[in-house]
Amino acid sequence: MSGAVYLVGAGPGAADLLTVRAARLLGQADVVVHDALIGAEVLALAPQAKLYNVGKRANRPSVDQRFICRLLVRLAGRHGVVVRLKGGDPNLFGRATEETRACRAAGVPVVSVPGISAGFAAASSLGVSLTARGVSRSVAFVTPTVARDGVETAHWAEAAAAAETAVIYMGALQAERVRDALLARGVPAHRPVALVESASLVGERIVRGALHELVELARELGEGPAIMVIGEAVAEARAVIAAADAA
Amino acid sequence: MSGAVYLVGAGPGAADLLTVRAARLLGQADVVVHDALIGAEVLALAPQAKLYNVGKRANRPSVDQRFICRLLVRLAGRHGVVVRLKGGDPNLFGRATEETRACRAAGVPVVSVPGISAGFAAASSLGVSLTARGVSRSVAFVTPTVARDGVETAHWAEAAAAAETAVIYMGALQAERVRDALLARGVPAHRPVALVESASLVGERIVRGALHELVELARELGEGPAIMVIGEAVAEARAVIAAADAA
Repeated sequence: MSGAVYLVGAGPGAADLLTVRAARLLGQADVVVHDALIGAEVLALAPQAKLYNVGKRANRPSVDQRFICRLLVRLAGRHGVVVRLKGGDPNLFGRATEETRACRAAGVPVVSVPGISAGFAAASSLGVSLTARGVSRSVAFVTPTVARDGVETAHWAEAAAAAETAVIYMGALQAERVRDALLARGVPAHRPVALVESASLVGERIVRGALHELVELARELGEGPAIMVIGEAVAEARAVIAAADAA
Repeated sequence: MSGAVYLVGAGPGAADLLTVRAARLLGQADVVVHDALIGAEVLALAPQAKLYNVGKRANRPSVDQRFICRLLVRLAGRHGVVVRLKGGDPNLFGRATEETRACRAAGVPVVSVPGISAGFAAASSLGVSLTARGVSRSVAFVTPTVARDGVETAHWAEAAAAAETAVIYMGALQAERVRDALLARGVPAHRPVALVESASLVGERIVRGALHELVELARELGEGPAIMVIGEAVAEARAVIAAADAA
């Protein structure tokens, strides 16, 4: 028996923001290998699957990436439909490359199913377009995380500063570094920013201000994952009607 | 009676790449105001809705944006659920700002529902991650279209050159300009590129090469909308198993 591994985007959190294809694959899944941040409502879409939680959790050692790769290959040898479920989109900050390589090296077919990345959920929650005629025709998605060998690559900051709208992942805990890096590259201190915590979920929280206030704004957030959106396009963000409530 | 306008992302084309929420809203819609590129299978998700096609079509004058704005406000005065259905995600190159403003000015609630943007469908089709440890932690989404007043803003090229991975929308017909702008900003001529036409659809076509070959690669494409992905992350793109076929 040999199965396939489906790298599936779970979307930003709300269970109805998966794609129809992702929901169908979860319903067919024999096993689901998922990150820690995937919610119970999403996992409930795979009622008959065996679940493997391989995500990082606070105060516990994270699961080694090589272990996950070996697990996927092993499971594909025993099951037909192995879903590797990742928050957001599998191909944006999802570590898909290592898992794809491992599966291909073992002759296991890999299929990628896109998902709604948190930045897009944040834009919807803010009620703003990341691009706007005459305001922004470029959007950068970056993360300021330091490279594994401890050497910081500045590309993330160059890319964020060059784009008219910057969407920053995993940056709220490094708000001071983000602020300083962007100011040093000439981004105006008064450029509008919005931070969206737990976009699309019940605990969603939004704070708004300007780039020079980024550290203070980040402090207003809680423990959930947060997205920072920086650019004039954010200026029209408003008091929010969550899509889930209004629908 | 007063309804709400839902700015809904239709995703890249395949009918099962809408979100579950988008599909549900289409099922509830009284009217759907849609772009020309939305396929029949997607529109079939709104069987009882009156359809308004306001998209641009070849050889026909495009519908004025102000007309669309007025139409949405007028329909919301008569119907409960007005879905404004846009290809991809409504907040990335979707002209959402004008329509949101018009609705708010008229007191009509606007709710945004994210969608899979074509760049993410392209990455899934290519089987590559837009980001990869040690290769890319920044992705720029840009479009090289010239501004309405005829003055070119170079921001798109700066942003595309500064990011480790560039995803270029609506650029295939301007491949020479894209190539020259990136080379002039120091992007290596041998950087890998992939072009994906009609990502996620039956007519999907992929061509691969290097930046210096961009014009020739674009010529190999057909008439469908195409996404260009430029960056070392593309180097591992492979012969493709379309997700829809394998699923």
